Amino acid sequence: MAPTVLITGIGELTTNDDELGQLRDAALVLDGERVAWVGPAAQAPDADERVDVEGRAVLPGWVDSHTHLVFAGDRTAEFAARMAGEPYQAGGIAVTVAATRAASDSDLADGVRRHVAESVSQGTTYLETKTGYGLTVEDEVRSARLAGEYVDEVTFLGAHLVPEDWDGDEYVRLVCGEMLDAVAPHVRWADVFCESGAFDEEQSRAVLQAAKKRGLGLRVHGNQLGPGPGVQLAVELGAASVDHCTYLESNDIEALAESDTVATLLPACDLSTRQPLANARDLIDTGATIALASNCNPGSSYTSSMAFCVATAVLQMHLSVAEAVRAATWGGARALRRESGDDAIGVLGPGARADVHVLDAPSTTWLAYRPGVPMTHAVWRKGTRVR
Amino acid sequence: MAPTVLITGIGELTTNDDELGQLRDAALVLDGERVAWVGPAAQAPDADERVDVEGRAVLPGWVDSHTHLVFAGDRTAEFAARMAGEPYQAGGIAVTVAATRAASDSDLADGVRRHVAESVSQGTTYLETKTGYGLTVEDEVRSARLAGEYVDEVTFLGAHLVPEDWDGDEYVRLVCGEMLDAVAPHVRWADVFCESGAFDEEQSRAVLQAAKKRGLGLRVHGNQLGPGPGVQLAVELGAASVDHCTYLESNDIEALAESDTVATLLPACDLSTRQPLANARDLIDTGATIALASNCNPGSSYTSSMAFCVATAVLQMHLSVAEAVRAATWGGARALRRESGDDAIGVLGPGARADVHVLDAPSTTWLAYRPGVPMTHAVWRKGTRVR
Ligand SMILES: [Zn+2]
Ligand SMILES: [Zn+2]
Repeated sequence: MAPTVLITGIGELTTNDDELGQLRDAALVLDGERVAWVGPAAQAPDADERVDVEGRAVLPGWVDSHTHLVFAGDRTAEFAARMAGEPYQAGGIAVTVAATRAASDSDLADGVRRHVAESVSQGTTYLETKTGYGLTVEDEVRSARLAGEYVDEVTFLGAHLVPEDWDGDEYVRLVCGEMLDAVAPHVRWADVFCESGAFDEEQSRAVLQAAKKRGLGLRVHGNQLGPGPGVQLAVELGAASVDHCTYLESNDIEALAESDTVATLLPACDLSTRQPLANARDLIDTGATIALASNCNPGSSYTSSMAFCVATAVLQMHLSVAEAVRAATWGGARALRRESGDDAIGVLGPGARADVHVLDAPSTTWLAYRPGVPMTHAVWRKGTRVR
Repeated sequence: MAPTVLITGIGELTTNDDELGQLRDAALVLDGERVAWVGPAAQAPDADERVDVEGRAVLPGWVDSHTHLVFAGDRTAEFAARMAGEPYQAGGIAVTVAATRAASDSDLADGVRRHVAESVSQGTTYLETKTGYGLTVEDEVRSARLAGEYVDEVTFLGAHLVPEDWDGDEYVRLVCGEMLDAVAPHVRWADVFCESGAFDEEQSRAVLQAAKKRGLGLRVHGNQLGPGPGVQLAVELGAASVDHCTYLESNDIEALAESDTVATLLPACDLSTRQPLANARDLIDTGATIALASNCNPGSSYTSSMAFCVATAVLQMHLSVAEAVRAATWGGARALRRESGDDAIGVLGPGARADVHVLDAPSTTWLAYRPGVPMTHAVWRKGTRVR
């Protein structure tokens, strides 16, 4: 049996647990892969090991609920050109598709492993990642299989882009049929890039309905590059999350507020593509649930830094630190339907998965007060100290 | 004699040297505190030690030409309140003044040392810092003396705020007389906070003229919270730099373009005080020289991350990566009049100070392409490997 671990000397503990709230002078006990006890340091039970974090702030590990880590190739030059004034277009994805298809299994796996390690070293303890740079039955299955070896949840994104030399409707039929059949056993979720230049409303609905029939949960890339049907479609079909939400009409915000669909905002992507930042304030004020995620991918948002997303949300999207931190932990968990029950993530209460992030700071406020300063002091992932 | 060090395997070398430019497959030789040789890896001379950086990008260490590191006390709550909608006002400085006066020498020194170490670990190899949280003769001398033990250049900022219970003009007479006499031996520069709520144009001119008469170089805090006379005053008196430049009229930009005064931009401060970002694009396009600096201080900008400033400049201020990197290295050096001659900083040519920053990236573009991801792989400061 793994030894129990008492983490004590916690100056500020963010639990995301409605009853526990935020505690000062707190302690945590980890028992194997789960949190066993949370409360005031003075009342902490004994444990086999003891770690004193000397007044530091502790919070649940980041939940990065939107990444694209199965890729090969380099798009540094495309980014530099965009910063020099060229617009972002969905078609750039094709460059990564060609490189990914050409890469060996072991090169792809190395890339996923390296990016996951980089994320974990910055306090991310739970990752979703998507296929979508394969776009053939074989390459999508390969992507899903490799992703599943290194990340917590895998999403099928065969409908990322219509591959060269394909008719859109014909490709959608492939995605909904043979490709879905082959990939479904490897994934929990299906997603579609519902956007001009990618898949229109009817094509997107077809993909999502086919996936739902296969028992997969739904996610949508929507309203990234302009207003569009993505949000309404996600709500209509009961998707767990609609991601980007950069261009929302007021009826989109209302639909989200009245639904269980999480609005997953990707501020690093908005900045990296020179789009406006999503309207997080109105979403929260209207009653929608938001998540923050990195969208780590080589085209539109090549960062793994959840702290950067949180700092941006506070400094520029008018969220409080508490709102931004919650969106990057609990919100991501909710977008993955993992925020409650046994092994819940994004929370630090008894029974939750032991995903713990210790900041080298007395308060989570420092994540925005000190933007860019590396602030991860220690990380436990599923009960194992990984940093 | 210190061994010579050959740094080889440099995938991309940014020299900021007009003749050398940016090199690929390059090498550097360090001899003691200076750069001895720069050129193609294939032509590199022998050295006592050899470090292969395996294709990484190398650039001069960051020159952080504007910080306020001699302080005590905590203003986390003020930052959080500001993010909740309260405006930034110069008067918050008084909180830090009270805490700084009450702190022991060793506590202040510990703070400076800790912040310098944090900066160096992120690739900053040359730091300026200011007094200005003492505001008595004794406390300003103490601040200057302590700063001089840990940073490269010290600036006298007795004219940071009119202390409580003082008349502005009376305080200016103290600053220009007894205080300047006492502090001048410990500093190279004098600075004034020329802004509504701090010092007006005539008071600022008096401080700068007195400092100039004492042989100090001049710097100005100007145009931070609104349009004002700071820029014109800086240019009129031949200041090396005018810092902030958040609110510029077109005649300010023209004056800067026709002068030797550097416009030092502080984007992390602009974001942390919810001001607009400075108009870097027009400054460069009109012919002004810009620098980027952190303005690390507990009130308006508590970051030490020059990489964050560079990423912000590219993503949101429309600089190219090359322009932003140059502003955060060569620009800072120019703002401190150290960009040429023996022991030049902000450049990597023969004779320059051996301040070398190795990124864990193949290209400086990654500083903006991967915002928030810690990217400092190795640092030499004055020829000594410090990370
Ligand atoms: Zn995406
Ligand atoms: Zn300042």
